[in-house]
Amino acid sequence: MRTLAMKVLGSAEKLPKRQVPTEEVAPMCGIDVTEAIERTGVHTRYWLSEEEDPLVLGTQAAEQAIADAGLRPADIDLVLNASGTPMQAIPDGGALMGAALGLTGHFAFSLHATCISFLVALQQAAFLIDAERARHVVIVSTEAGSRGLNFDQPESALLIGDAAVAIVVGPADRKEQGLQNASFTTDPRGVHDAEIRGFGTRIPVTHAVHSPADFQFDMNGLKLLRSALTVFPTFLETIAPGFSNGAPGIDRIIPHQTSKAGMELMSRFWGWDRMTVTLADVGNTIAASIPLAMHRTPIQPGEKALLIGTGSGTHYGALVVQW
Amino acid sequence: MRTLAMKVLGSAEKLPKRQVPTEEVAPMCGIDVTEAIERTGVHTRYWLSEEEDPLVLGTQAAEQAIADAGLRPADIDLVLNASGTPMQAIPDGGALMGAALGLTGHFAFSLHATCISFLVALQQAAFLIDAERARHVVIVSTEAGSRGLNFDQPESALLIGDAAVAIVVGPADRKEQGLQNASFTTDPRGVHDAEIRGFGTRIPVTHAVHSPADFQFDMNGLKLLRSALTVFPTFLETIAPGFSNGAPGIDRIIPHQTSKAGMELMSRFWGWDRMTVTLADVGNTIAASIPLAMHRTPIQPGEKALLIGTGSGTHYGALVVQW
Repeated sequence: MRTLAMKVLGSAEKLPKRQVPTEEVAPMCGIDVTEAIERTGVHTRYWLSEEEDPLVLGTQAAEQAIADAGLRPADIDLVLNASGTPMQAIPDGGALMGAALGLTGHFAFSLHATCISFLVALQQAAFLIDAERARHVVIVSTEAGSRGLNFDQPESALLIGDAAVAIVVGPADRKEQGLQNASFTTDPRGVHDAEIRGFGTRIPVTHAVHSPADFQFDMNGLKLLRSALTVFPTFLETIAPGFSNGAPGIDRIIPHQTSKAGMELMSRFWGWDRMTVTLADVGNTIAASIPLAMHRTPIQPGEKALLIGTGSGTHYGALVVQW
Repeated sequence: MRTLAMKVLGSAEKLPKRQVPTEEVAPMCGIDVTEAIERTGVHTRYWLSEEEDPLVLGTQAAEQAIADAGLRPADIDLVLNASGTPMQAIPDGGALMGAALGLTGHFAFSLHATCISFLVALQQAAFLIDAERARHVVIVSTEAGSRGLNFDQPESALLIGDAAVAIVVGPADRKEQGLQNASFTTDPRGVHDAEIRGFGTRIPVTHAVHSPADFQFDMNGLKLLRSALTVFPTFLETIAPGFSNGAPGIDRIIPHQTSKAGMELMSRFWGWDRMTVTLADVGNTIAASIPLAMHRTPIQPGEKALLIGTGSGTHYGALVVQW
């Protein structure tokens, strides 16, 4: 793949006001606190209060990221909503965010690849910027997974946190800066192992009253982990040779924060030193997870980062980006 | 914009079993049949029965389009779900469709730009095929808008029909064949003029029982039409000069089938001769509308088509594709 010329110009995160310690969540799941932390690796996470709106949080993150990039909202050509949880059915979250940012005469839309939505959005932005079809793109991931938790399933209920993160990308200013490699695949065997069956046209929304579990996150983590064990090594080699054995040439590894077991699986391939881990402090923030870890990593100009993750589907995705 | 080399290889449509004449819908809206047809231009549309699944319809359309392209499902590198109505929250419809097609080791995800989702998906496919990052892509739009109609709003309830359409694209075999021009913009003034507020994290799903209208399509068509009147001429000129005055060099015009008034507005710019109109027979099938009109148009090799539409947001999008 030819490098798609692009540069990360700014970023910001916006967390809900309320920090929720595992001490509070474990009893809701009928689980011992120490065991809960041991199993998930999550000490705290943030949950939106009823008064908070994921659209407002996402918009604030976007405004801060745009300012961080030294730009004004009017400089943005395109808003990409890259969230795993929808805010409403129609219009898409991109349009909602564009309107909330006060943008007129610019485009905004949404990409959805569950937890790796940010990766497909960053690839989309890279294509447009490289082709000079857009100059500045803001990608926003805003998640409110806490609103669909099933406390009868401690495994996922203990993991999920809310967050909004925005990243601004624009033209490269050096050769080789940008998106150097990309690889994506979907393993259909896991299509029903992490899902929310409701919120669409397949199950009437009125069923939420008598069948609430259909409108909550339903995950079989052990099965997903077993699949990942078999798929990951082969998938990593499709990014570039050697990626399942040390990821040579990569300075920073920015993974999706799936779970403690998921992070341990990733560490087998390249150790812990280069890998950003935010899981303990914020939990698994769905599609906000990769950009949040990226925002918190002080990546230096010239460094190469591997952005990588899995998502319900089961999607596997990875980008190699030179800063 | 440099032409993104790509070729349309096959297409298929799959309609629900039940054809619903306006004679049946008008009384549900408390409106006279003749007036209903006069106002909307829709004589019949198709609605999914309770037993039908938009995922099954979409998968059948994809299988037929793949066969029409002379390919097998295993030849497809990427499935793009480009639907305006979600089938469920997680995983995204792309993953659901990839699994239903039995694809392993290929990628699948979703793009959502309401009624112009197909246009952003086709642009995404063109970037990937042109860059040789994908060889064959199937784009599927499957819509079940009938499951969210508000019969207190005849204006939209009379318009919407269900359909599934799939288009297969692959490498170009001639110079200049492919995506020649693209233009997109979002007018935030219309962000709340065509919406379904529910089905996401902003409104609890249990509200569907006492506040059903929040989970149904809510449209202010007159306001949207007035905005379109002011935005369209300027927008058309961003595609290529002269597009608001006859669209020179364009052989076929494939518009989103918004409404009778919407089609009349479009005809002002280039007349009726080159424009495909399916509205009377199938209604407004949301994001399936443009690919359905495309599938029904016998576009010849070398001809240039303008694919154009508006969508809730308010999104405006247009692609110029040489066949």
